[in-house]
Amino acid sequence: MIALPPGATIGILGGGQLGRMLAMAAARLGLKCAIYCDASGPAFDVAATSIIGGYDDLDAVRQFAKTVDVVTYEFENVPCALAEAAAEIRPVRPGVKALEVAQDRLNEKQFIAQLGLPVAPFAAVDDETTLAEAAKKLGLPAILKTRRLGYDGKGQVRLKRTSDLQDACSAISNAPAILEGKVEFLLEVSVLLVRGIDGDIRVYDVPQNTHANGILDTSTVPAPISQKARVRAADIATQIAEALDYVGVLAVELFFLGEDATEPLIVNEIAPRVHNSGHWTIDACVVNQFENHIRAVAGWPLGDPQRHSDAVMTNLIGADVNEWKNMAAEPNAGLHLYGKNEPRPGRKMGHITRIGPKSGD
Amino acid sequence: MIALPPGATIGILGGGQLGRMLAMAAARLGLKCAIYCDASGPAFDVAATSIIGGYDDLDAVRQFAKTVDVVTYEFENVPCALAEAAAEIRPVRPGVKALEVAQDRLNEKQFIAQLGLPVAPFAAVDDETTLAEAAKKLGLPAILKTRRLGYDGKGQVRLKRTSDLQDACSAISNAPAILEGKVEFLLEVSVLLVRGIDGDIRVYDVPQNTHANGILDTSTVPAPISQKARVRAADIATQIAEALDYVGVLAVELFFLGEDATEPLIVNEIAPRVHNSGHWTIDACVVNQFENHIRAVAGWPLGDPQRHSDAVMTNLIGADVNEWKNMAAEPNAGLHLYGKNEPRPGRKMGHITRIGPKSGD
Repeated sequence: MIALPPGATIGILGGGQLGRMLAMAAARLGLKCAIYCDASGPAFDVAATSIIGGYDDLDAVRQFAKTVDVVTYEFENVPCALAEAAAEIRPVRPGVKALEVAQDRLNEKQFIAQLGLPVAPFAAVDDETTLAEAAKKLGLPAILKTRRLGYDGKGQVRLKRTSDLQDACSAISNAPAILEGKVEFLLEVSVLLVRGIDGDIRVYDVPQNTHANGILDTSTVPAPISQKARVRAADIATQIAEALDYVGVLAVELFFLGEDATEPLIVNEIAPRVHNSGHWTIDACVVNQFENHIRAVAGWPLGDPQRHSDAVMTNLIGADVNEWKNMAAEPNAGLHLYGKNEPRPGRKMGHITRIGPKSGD
Repeated sequence: MIALPPGATIGILGGGQLGRMLAMAAARLGLKCAIYCDASGPAFDVAATSIIGGYDDLDAVRQFAKTVDVVTYEFENVPCALAEAAAEIRPVRPGVKALEVAQDRLNEKQFIAQLGLPVAPFAAVDDETTLAEAAKKLGLPAILKTRRLGYDGKGQVRLKRTSDLQDACSAISNAPAILEGKVEFLLEVSVLLVRGIDGDIRVYDVPQNTHANGILDTSTVPAPISQKARVRAADIATQIAEALDYVGVLAVELFFLGEDATEPLIVNEIAPRVHNSGHWTIDACVVNQFENHIRAVAGWPLGDPQRHSDAVMTNLIGADVNEWKNMAAEPNAGLHLYGKNEPRPGRKMGHITRIGPKSGD
């Protein structure tokens, strides 16, 4: 395994809070970061160098790639053409394939289903006619989601009854979409997995995730599911990572149906990057998800994903952050602010992780 | 208490690894850092802005101070005139008084002794005559130390017998010095304390420290001393911090003479800054020494200093760092590299903290 030596430079496409935390993790290992982003962002303040370049500017990203030793990305909507242009110059990890799969909900669902892994029932929707057919096939309630560019609850419409179908396509601007059959589940969990360039895999303890207004609200470790279900969750994520020949941190969101279900877990979606539901690892693990992603893309040995503490991570969305001073005074709590100026509604401003002694699982 | 808001800028005098870890801690809180250093250093890669300026360039530091909200320093040999010039423009925390005391071993010893706290017997030495008098008064063995600019075992001569006195002054270039009587101690410990601008004080668990070739080698928490001795150690450090009206992290190195001693602890020296013997707090505490220093100088509530894990921190000096790949593969270990290029002998290149479940104290 050829590892980049300390002092090498990791290029990161994207300059948001995930890029910021990746850059901080790289610094811990004596690695430099260079950020490529279409606008100044939270990562710029902690990286050795940062440049502003368009996500459609292939020449600019090639130039950027020449200044670094390996390229990674912090958001899954990096245009594939941009990643491919960078890959002409330097290795891009995780690869372009992971982007192609994760950027399109239909590709993603088909890819996972083809691995024989459980997904919610789904059907492609291109217009009102195919929507009507899909609704007939899957039944209602169901959720209409754009194939591309939806996140944090955006680009989604919940359909409860037949009359909801009427305006559904126009509500998502007639974008190519999929209809997902509604899954009755007990709770949501996620797997944070890291895979090295030699195929070594480490899996963090599975958090339970809750959402508010379509945005992740809390991640709690350990999740209240059996050891058997955890092993299955890790197994599902491992199969996906191996099928993608993945390098780096991969997040797999899962619905947990219950201990008595024949298949207790269903894959909701994957994210080919460090993930909000893994932020608790900063305060509860000796090597967090950001550092393990950096280690993987730099060809380093992976770090120990073991947690030393139980943890509840809570996102600070919009005005939540105004309570920073009270939160800073809490015992047993790690406060993380992303350096964003305006606490706009729905904007991820930071998070707080409250830890406690490690419980038995 | 007026706290700097997230987004404010901390100016740091000095750009070494301590400045680097301070900047990373500030970033976690959404605070920016600006570095002022006489040469490019490890902190430059993780700070929002960095400038090179002479430590005797008072105009340059005044200009620098105008660009930040508060000024701190990462090494105790910042010239007092530089700190005073910055203080004309912005608050400098910890203050100039802490520098004056800590930069001069004679001032330091006198200051601590005047507080009624235990120090090793000492006497001022200006030349061979005063050295002979001091040796007569304190007896041999003893250690001759320059009053200023000695650290990591530099600027020191051990005197075992009268014949050693002969070349001792020239060995330290006839610099103003003190002679310290040798103290027989069982082990060395240190107190890492943080004091806020409102006088609030938090104390980390006391590590035992070992040295190799005059440089810190390991810090182990908890130290094998009684609860009573720990309380006394914290009490000594608290008295020093209050007497200095100190703001930030203060390190107090102590000799531990034994549980049966009338006074089990003697102050060796103080450092008005984050300290190498506190690096274990990064991996074993939810709020580490660097973050607590930043919180203090920014007027924030102090963070919880409680450790969640036991820890052994080992410095990586010079060529030790070449083993980075093996160390990166260790479980339960946090590896920290400072981004320095050449692993010269005696140079602090990084550290590794091995953690384990928290033991009873």
